[in-house]
Amino acid sequence: MGGYMNRILRVNLSTREYSVEPIAEALIKNFIGGRGLGAKMLYDDLSAGVDPLSPENEIIFVAGPLAGTAAQSFGRWSIFFKSPLTGGYFQSTGGGFFASEMKFAGYDAIVVTGKADKPVYLWINEEKVEFRDASYLWGFTNEETHVLIREELNDPFVRIASIGPAGENLVRFAGVFSDRHAAGRGGGGAVMGSKNLKAIAIRGRKTVPIAMPEAFQEAIKFEIATYRAHPAFESFSRTGTQIAEFTNLLGMFPTRNFREGVLPNWEAIQGSEFDKLRVRKTGCHNCVIHCVNISKAYHGPFKGAWSEGPEYETIWAFTGPIVVSEPGLTIAADRLCDELGLDTISTGQAIGFAYELFEKGLITTQDTGGLELRYGDFKPVLQLIRQIAYKEQLGALLSEGVREAARRIGRGAEHYAIHVKGLELPAYDPRGAKAHGLNLLTANIGADHNYGYSGQEIFGAPIPKEVDRFEVQGKGELAKFNQDMVAFLETGIMCTFPASMMMVNEEVYSKLIYAATGVEEFKDPAYMWIVGERIYNLERMFNVREGFGKKDDVMPQRIVTEPMPDGPSKGQVFEQDELLRQYYAARGWDLETGIPTLEKLRELGLAQR
Amino acid sequence: MGGYMNRILRVNLSTREYSVEPIAEALIKNFIGGRGLGAKMLYDDLSAGVDPLSPENEIIFVAGPLAGTAAQSFGRWSIFFKSPLTGGYFQSTGGGFFASEMKFAGYDAIVVTGKADKPVYLWINEEKVEFRDASYLWGFTNEETHVLIREELNDPFVRIASIGPAGENLVRFAGVFSDRHAAGRGGGGAVMGSKNLKAIAIRGRKTVPIAMPEAFQEAIKFEIATYRAHPAFESFSRTGTQIAEFTNLLGMFPTRNFREGVLPNWEAIQGSEFDKLRVRKTGCHNCVIHCVNISKAYHGPFKGAWSEGPEYETIWAFTGPIVVSEPGLTIAADRLCDELGLDTISTGQAIGFAYELFEKGLITTQDTGGLELRYGDFKPVLQLIRQIAYKEQLGALLSEGVREAARRIGRGAEHYAIHVKGLELPAYDPRGAKAHGLNLLTANIGADHNYGYSGQEIFGAPIPKEVDRFEVQGKGELAKFNQDMVAFLETGIMCTFPASMMMVNEEVYSKLIYAATGVEEFKDPAYMWIVGERIYNLERMFNVREGFGKKDDVMPQRIVTEPMPDGPSKGQVFEQDELLRQYYAARGWDLETGIPTLEKLRELGLAQR
Repeated sequence: MGGYMNRILRVNLSTREYSVEPIAEALIKNFIGGRGLGAKMLYDDLSAGVDPLSPENEIIFVAGPLAGTAAQSFGRWSIFFKSPLTGGYFQSTGGGFFASEMKFAGYDAIVVTGKADKPVYLWINEEKVEFRDASYLWGFTNEETHVLIREELNDPFVRIASIGPAGENLVRFAGVFSDRHAAGRGGGGAVMGSKNLKAIAIRGRKTVPIAMPEAFQEAIKFEIATYRAHPAFESFSRTGTQIAEFTNLLGMFPTRNFREGVLPNWEAIQGSEFDKLRVRKTGCHNCVIHCVNISKAYHGPFKGAWSEGPEYETIWAFTGPIVVSEPGLTIAADRLCDELGLDTISTGQAIGFAYELFEKGLITTQDTGGLELRYGDFKPVLQLIRQIAYKEQLGALLSEGVREAARRIGRGAEHYAIHVKGLELPAYDPRGAKAHGLNLLTANIGADHNYGYSGQEIFGAPIPKEVDRFEVQGKGELAKFNQDMVAFLETGIMCTFPASMMMVNEEVYSKLIYAATGVEEFKDPAYMWIVGERIYNLERMFNVREGFGKKDDVMPQRIVTEPMPDGPSKGQVFEQDELLRQYYAARGWDLETGIPTLEKLRELGLAQR
Repeated sequence: MGGYMNRILRVNLSTREYSVEPIAEALIKNFIGGRGLGAKMLYDDLSAGVDPLSPENEIIFVAGPLAGTAAQSFGRWSIFFKSPLTGGYFQSTGGGFFASEMKFAGYDAIVVTGKADKPVYLWINEEKVEFRDASYLWGFTNEETHVLIREELNDPFVRIASIGPAGENLVRFAGVFSDRHAAGRGGGGAVMGSKNLKAIAIRGRKTVPIAMPEAFQEAIKFEIATYRAHPAFESFSRTGTQIAEFTNLLGMFPTRNFREGVLPNWEAIQGSEFDKLRVRKTGCHNCVIHCVNISKAYHGPFKGAWSEGPEYETIWAFTGPIVVSEPGLTIAADRLCDELGLDTISTGQAIGFAYELFEKGLITTQDTGGLELRYGDFKPVLQLIRQIAYKEQLGALLSEGVREAARRIGRGAEHYAIHVKGLELPAYDPRGAKAHGLNLLTANIGADHNYGYSGQEIFGAPIPKEVDRFEVQGKGELAKFNQDMVAFLETGIMCTFPASMMMVNEEVYSKLIYAATGVEEFKDPAYMWIVGERIYNLERMFNVREGFGKKDDVMPQRIVTEPMPDGPSKGQVFEQDELLRQYYAARGWDLETGIPTLEKLRELGLAQR
């Protein structure tokens, strides 16, 4: 069987023991791998009620069956864990080269449990696994950590996934970082921090076996041809995810903590402006799109700042929430979050939340350590980021995420906490795109845009058909379509960017995964949809086991009750009840509870018979 | 002929042209290579009166004939240039792996002249030389620059020598940095900055030819055996240059801007304290000593700070001058200087100078940007370092070096400017060791300790014989002995640390250089001394051509007229006139002018007949 190394490394930090096991054949048939593998293992390994920051939680690093192969856009690694931010199932995904190196070292997954008695990092050199002292690395930024570990191991080709000070300090939206790419969302960095695990360093020289090499080459040609035929390929490749003009022109660029949908002077942060700040293009392992930029502020108040990025979400995170349109700030904040180890989306949104609380008088300079938080003023932002990473002053509160911060502040602060299931909303106002909003409402990890990106509504992608973004009717089906597609593509693990742009489909993916693995079931493109839906329902059941249900599929009140005040989405609200009803119906879930019916679970092979 | 690649790369940044030429055979016979090669080329290439920061100045990177070979402690690269700090001849030397990589790429020397019209870096991949855009790197720190260049070139084995913001900003004591090792002194970084040259990146796969491989192996065994037989080898290897206890116990640890010789609470910065802060040992290419430490402040006010180092000079630079004994500060300041691209010795000494001016009321908070400079208070130090690198507030003055800063301040500030020939004094009070002081007074680059380190006085080394450190008689001869020995060892280019500790001698070196090169003249150990003296006099003549003479061999007044107030060197002054007379006599220089006599020059083959 190609594609897989067929080896899962299980590491217990408490006992400093490790073992290797194969992947169950039935698991591969039913879940393919990647996201399917991670979701199934997390579901099976954890019991309900585990404290996310306890030694009993797991963090599972997964490389998909197509990672490390010549297939395009599969250089992604995902981490799976119970989230300290949402309290539920979580998957977070990063790019770069870590996934490929895992395969080259001979592993499809690395499962880490327990807690080390002092800071360690794992050094995985194919068969050799070492628990190495990381006391000296504790407190260091991600880039410093990567440089020093490579030097210590005397091998510049080692790939490293690490946490920064934010993860060490258990910030609930601290991420995990590799090659300046982040698996940013949901607090995987805090889970590593709680285990005293500073980093995983990995190196390998194996090759990934391919079941049918000639067919695989053909499938890759087909994939690349599909990419190139897509109208968005060229601009996406050239500029990356610079789509602030799209969302501003749709009036759904969240501004002033989701009170407005158009950023004043948004032209200053559109793609053509970032074109001027591009240092060079980079990309992940084996991806012709190479959408990544390294950017530098050549002029202005942040002159000299640089980062790998910023991508659209980060550009938004440090503009819209605080009503600022300064590209240099987005670059400086991006770099600072990468170095300290923070998710930019939650960080930016937490700061926007603080700005609104300050405006409303719910917090004062006594809480902020003297900082005045006024919309339009970017001066406090870098200081607030540091406060969050080090849990100082207001940062100590914000580091819990907006949901918990609002709960602790009380006095109505909850009204300004813009999240679903505890995960801060990203750069799309749900009022401007109903299927996209429905995905944010129902994604198993909370308000995540990539979980079921509505390229139909944002980019006008005509697959499966053209839609009206404000229309409610049919959006339950569409959200399910987008979510299930991402779920099966992430068995690869394919990048969600080409998926969001509808640059690939089940046919492309089926050809690739079948040729690589030789698993007969994967030959049928229609089977991909079944696997996608199966994974989606399994994840939902993880959350159901934790007590989640319809009560957690709840938008922030503002999105549901306040019509968009102005701009191209003026007058729109998010019709939560009707949209959710349609969605549950499309999913075959109980309309009252939002729980998958036994019938649906049986259909997907998820129920014990 | 082994040892040499016999190729000098000449690069003109103005025309973006380059050429390769062999080394003249006579040059090798007379000057061996390394320091001899650099000194001779700089002497021949430059005319008197060249502005150090003009395109006409050169910066010559030299790797010695033993760099890149298996001989020990020859992984050093030197840069040669006319100094913007002293106005005279300058050589500055760094460690790491850059020298070896130069050889592997096929070059003994890289001569850079002219000025690029915009920031560039040189990319030297054996025969291929590229002038690459460095606009995006301008403003970046050294470590950032190294990381980004390696990524741009997609080769993690590339070695890089670069400048930080201080070099770009033409700070007159900005250094050049590679592998976190500095060629720190004299302003080579400013020379690169004046040429718009951000970095040289180099990569090679050649091997260094060896004339007599078996004899060379024997010579290396002899060298290593000599090392190991030396009483200092083990402790030097274990702790590095942690000698603050030596100099404090000798009462010559310059404190309070050279007013005192013992630091209060110096026990806090002795080697055993830094042992506790060691993260790991590192070293340069092919050196069994591996004296280098990476250190981290695990506790205290600078918790989390780390650096490669700090070495003795840096430990002193951020303790003695400001009367502070906080190891964390030395680590944080070391790292900041490395990153911004500053020489730690001149930086620390400039800060100590500022503290004394503040005490005396010659500068106020109006000059310092509000900082209060009080002995014993370390809080302003990191801010002052940044001010120097970016030429802000008081830093703009200090960035010119203490000599020029004092001149501009006037009102008697010159009295507090502790330098010789414009180069700030290092961590040895000349009153406590007369031959060591005599070397500081007469070294061709200004007050440099490594130019002729008096291991006899500091460590009690009995070679050529035991001496009394306070004794004046015989110290002219001893200073010459130490200077000439370093000069011939640096034709290797051997590290000055084993030289300072008297761990090697002409016999060891002669065996190595003869076996490597096969040049008959090098077989005779006595010939090494001739070459050393020849180089020393040639360097002196460079300065004579620039107008230097006895008038420039002048100690700061304080050292000559104020007896050491307390401690183990109490009552001592530096007997400048008598010591200098002895030295000139030993050198065969004119006693009135300090200029080498024609007779001496003829004897050394330096006079046109």
